[in-house]
Amino acid sequence: MIPGLMQQTPLQVIDILKFAARAHGGVEVVSRLVDEPIVRSTYAGELRRTERAAKALQRLGVRAGDRVATLAWNTLRHFELFYAVPGLGAILNTVNPRLFDEQITYILNHAEAGVLFFDKSFLALVERLAPKLETVKTFVMLSDESAHEPGAVGAQCYERLLAQESDGFVWPTLDENAGAMLCYTSGTTGEPKGVLYSHRGIVLHAIASGLNSAFGFDAFDVVMPCSSLFHASAWGLPFAAPINGCKLVLPCEKMDGAHLQELILNEGVTFTGGVPTIWTMYLAHLEQTGGNAGKLKRVVIGGSAVPRAMAETFKRKYGVQVLQIWGMTETAPLGVIATPTPALAALGEDKLDEAIWTRQGRLQFGIELKVVDENGAEAPHDGETSGALMVRGPWTIQRYFRGERDVVDADGWFDTGDIATIDQFGFMRITDRKKDVIKSGGEWISSIDLENVAVACPGVKIAAVVGVPHPKWEERPIMLIEAHEGAELSEQQVLAYLAPRIVKWWTPDRVLFGLVPLTATGKINKKAIRDAYGQVLMGA
Amino acid sequence: MIPGLMQQTPLQVIDILKFAARAHGGVEVVSRLVDEPIVRSTYAGELRRTERAAKALQRLGVRAGDRVATLAWNTLRHFELFYAVPGLGAILNTVNPRLFDEQITYILNHAEAGVLFFDKSFLALVERLAPKLETVKTFVMLSDESAHEPGAVGAQCYERLLAQESDGFVWPTLDENAGAMLCYTSGTTGEPKGVLYSHRGIVLHAIASGLNSAFGFDAFDVVMPCSSLFHASAWGLPFAAPINGCKLVLPCEKMDGAHLQELILNEGVTFTGGVPTIWTMYLAHLEQTGGNAGKLKRVVIGGSAVPRAMAETFKRKYGVQVLQIWGMTETAPLGVIATPTPALAALGEDKLDEAIWTRQGRLQFGIELKVVDENGAEAPHDGETSGALMVRGPWTIQRYFRGERDVVDADGWFDTGDIATIDQFGFMRITDRKKDVIKSGGEWISSIDLENVAVACPGVKIAAVVGVPHPKWEERPIMLIEAHEGAELSEQQVLAYLAPRIVKWWTPDRVLFGLVPLTATGKINKKAIRDAYGQVLMGA
Repeated sequence: MIPGLMQQTPLQVIDILKFAARAHGGVEVVSRLVDEPIVRSTYAGELRRTERAAKALQRLGVRAGDRVATLAWNTLRHFELFYAVPGLGAILNTVNPRLFDEQITYILNHAEAGVLFFDKSFLALVERLAPKLETVKTFVMLSDESAHEPGAVGAQCYERLLAQESDGFVWPTLDENAGAMLCYTSGTTGEPKGVLYSHRGIVLHAIASGLNSAFGFDAFDVVMPCSSLFHASAWGLPFAAPINGCKLVLPCEKMDGAHLQELILNEGVTFTGGVPTIWTMYLAHLEQTGGNAGKLKRVVIGGSAVPRAMAETFKRKYGVQVLQIWGMTETAPLGVIATPTPALAALGEDKLDEAIWTRQGRLQFGIELKVVDENGAEAPHDGETSGALMVRGPWTIQRYFRGERDVVDADGWFDTGDIATIDQFGFMRITDRKKDVIKSGGEWISSIDLENVAVACPGVKIAAVVGVPHPKWEERPIMLIEAHEGAELSEQQVLAYLAPRIVKWWTPDRVLFGLVPLTATGKINKKAIRDAYGQVLMGA
Repeated sequence: MIPGLMQQTPLQVIDILKFAARAHGGVEVVSRLVDEPIVRSTYAGELRRTERAAKALQRLGVRAGDRVATLAWNTLRHFELFYAVPGLGAILNTVNPRLFDEQITYILNHAEAGVLFFDKSFLALVERLAPKLETVKTFVMLSDESAHEPGAVGAQCYERLLAQESDGFVWPTLDENAGAMLCYTSGTTGEPKGVLYSHRGIVLHAIASGLNSAFGFDAFDVVMPCSSLFHASAWGLPFAAPINGCKLVLPCEKMDGAHLQELILNEGVTFTGGVPTIWTMYLAHLEQTGGNAGKLKRVVIGGSAVPRAMAETFKRKYGVQVLQIWGMTETAPLGVIATPTPALAALGEDKLDEAIWTRQGRLQFGIELKVVDENGAEAPHDGETSGALMVRGPWTIQRYFRGERDVVDADGWFDTGDIATIDQFGFMRITDRKKDVIKSGGEWISSIDLENVAVACPGVKIAAVVGVPHPKWEERPIMLIEAHEGAELSEQQVLAYLAPRIVKWWTPDRVLFGLVPLTATGKINKKAIRDAYGQVLMGA
């Protein structure tokens, strides 16, 4: 091998913010905070505050490789820790505060976090967990002096720590393969598992996700992440936005229609994204108030399928394009996103919309996808043949944190646990989670496809489909429906709605009504549904 | 250091084409050829042909680390070698056929190329040089059977070599820091120097250059590179286009107005770029024929300053945005490109155009820029203070090929040899080459600024300014003007045009008329002008 003779510059997270401060120094970062007014900063200002935060972290004893945890919303202070902690060579462990106490405790102890930064909203939670935390010695509340409360844990005040430091910091040069962020996944079974992002993976993801095949950011975009910063870094938006010089708007935890609308109009938000629930509330708010969506152009939706009516309303009434996106903590997180291509556009606008709204998205440079059958043979790109979805690339997991073995096969592929198809346009569609697929008489039924049809039925708010044991067919689908407030729905009505829209043998054997249980990340908790209703067909 | 636990996938050039074949397999690659009709292929087809080319290279004895040279135009066959050669782990040495014989011989011997691929246009050249080539053992003409001529060098036929192989190839996994492409710079003095691009540098450049701050490609773009593939890889377009799923149109050497227009209209070209001369000819062709620019949206221009009238005509008459770009072989080559920002747009369209047309471009993620004074202190971003332009980053040179020492300073900065300013919007402007700056009585005069004013004077085709020795002022500017055919121009007329547009002490001491000598890369050969006219003021 003859080595190339270009510079061996490592890819480092802090270089993203340094670039933004230099190239887009005056571009704003605007943030809601807990119990404090909206604050306005800039990328130049954020670099200075991040320098102070790094010094404060050093003063608290944080060294390279140490884990620093957060229980925090989408705020400017959390954003600063996204850079200050990895910038030092330490590892930022963003913890999902919506998990059960036991899971949060498990994560903090497993990560061996030494310092915990938390928003005021979580003071009671932190006080409750503190006695069980084995390694956290220092607590810092992400507040200013006026809002600060030390609580039973004697928390320090973030703004006071920053005020004690001066601007300027000599960032160390790091190995680009060093760990930078640690995000835990929480399945419905088993302990949470940590995914340790490297500087290299984060920076490559941040560059590639800004391309027009993905987020397609330019310097005129105003980006408001409404998925959580603690959840796989909110699609990496805190990294992709500054690279592209986009103004960044951070909504804290205030995701209701009125609060979002205030930011969208006042700050000129052009791009946002999050789970469908938020956007249902937002559209309802617009409907009630007669408002418009301002400069908003694109909403990316991940986590669950986009209701067709929502996508239609956004487009026809407000001129906003809804795009699906798919990824997971193990892919840091971008896998695919549904953006137009000429081949699809040539089929006409309806077909294009159909693809964009019903496919998770198309192949992106930097993450390889394939669908394989039970023997590991690759399925054709025909949009029909489903199989296990495997992924590979520089921002895909190799091994879980403190795991004893790699979680990839001999060729480096990671099994996502999803069942999917890929079509001739390179668009991937998730048809099920592997553990949720329904095996009826040797054939597969897609629970997600059934849910997507049912959720369009008038009156249905959430539709959940699970397979439950059946004496004759091994498994058969049942459907649990949560209706909109005030809607009256019967099993007969739902079945009548489904009949012309699905093949007959997919028809659920039972339609039940009640609250659909959700996981801490807002997904349908199918395990809980199977636990509750698993025996309903055994008398059949 | 705690290593991150993501996959250690190396960044490899061949993965770009593999991605395009998979995600955009049906997207076309269209090419003119020497003495053959236009050919049409696709990214899927190009991967298969590249697999065959790799097998053919192996059969010719090419091994990892070997240098494989080309003397070739912008064609599909040259494009295939951009992937096949680095894909094998060998190094592609693209040689500029417009150099002097001695320079080409020097480069091929210095690179120790074993195989030379050449277009039929260069058969006589290759025959002439062959006796002096110390390492080239194998000659391959980039032709099909019907057009093939073995000549005195017994050249093999490219298409016959491919026809002998089968589809499919197992590409080796390479170290991403391995050398992939070797491009020589040719100054006006000294021997050419080789810049050895790594796989890592090329892939990072290819991803980042597709962002909206730079080329801003999407899958609807049709990209036609009109700068030479042998010249710093034509802005890396053969790599950036496939990543973004863009159709690629390769014009061979036919850069005259009629040939370009045929491709622009028939292939739906949206994006092109090259030196100003080409676009002067193209606009003249449109003018003569009354044609329009079809779907063309953007033209990037580098190499020399964009004449204001050209940019105005493109925009007002044909709806095409002209963007300046700056880079060099040592930066692989993208440095900056002039794309809009909100801060500039807020000043109004005229100011925005002014910036886009008169600045080389704005700061890009992945390549750091600074301007320093004679003591190495960084100059303010005020658009006024000029100094030496320094660059740094993962696609910037560390050392020349077979050089004995690094060419960067202790902090890793490479001195570009350009004199530049950076303004408060992050836009860089080249004011001179360091060796061309004119030192008059202790003050600096920008030869480029003077040329930019003079070239707008009616009748002027090219204006070249150099500093020559002066008995009193150390140096003073003289101007050499090449007039448009049929234009009559006097020194008095030119000086009258300049007078209201420049400060008085910048006024050239002499305006001469004649042919302006150009270098092999189409730049003004200032050394030759100084050699010819260096003494004209010594009698003053």
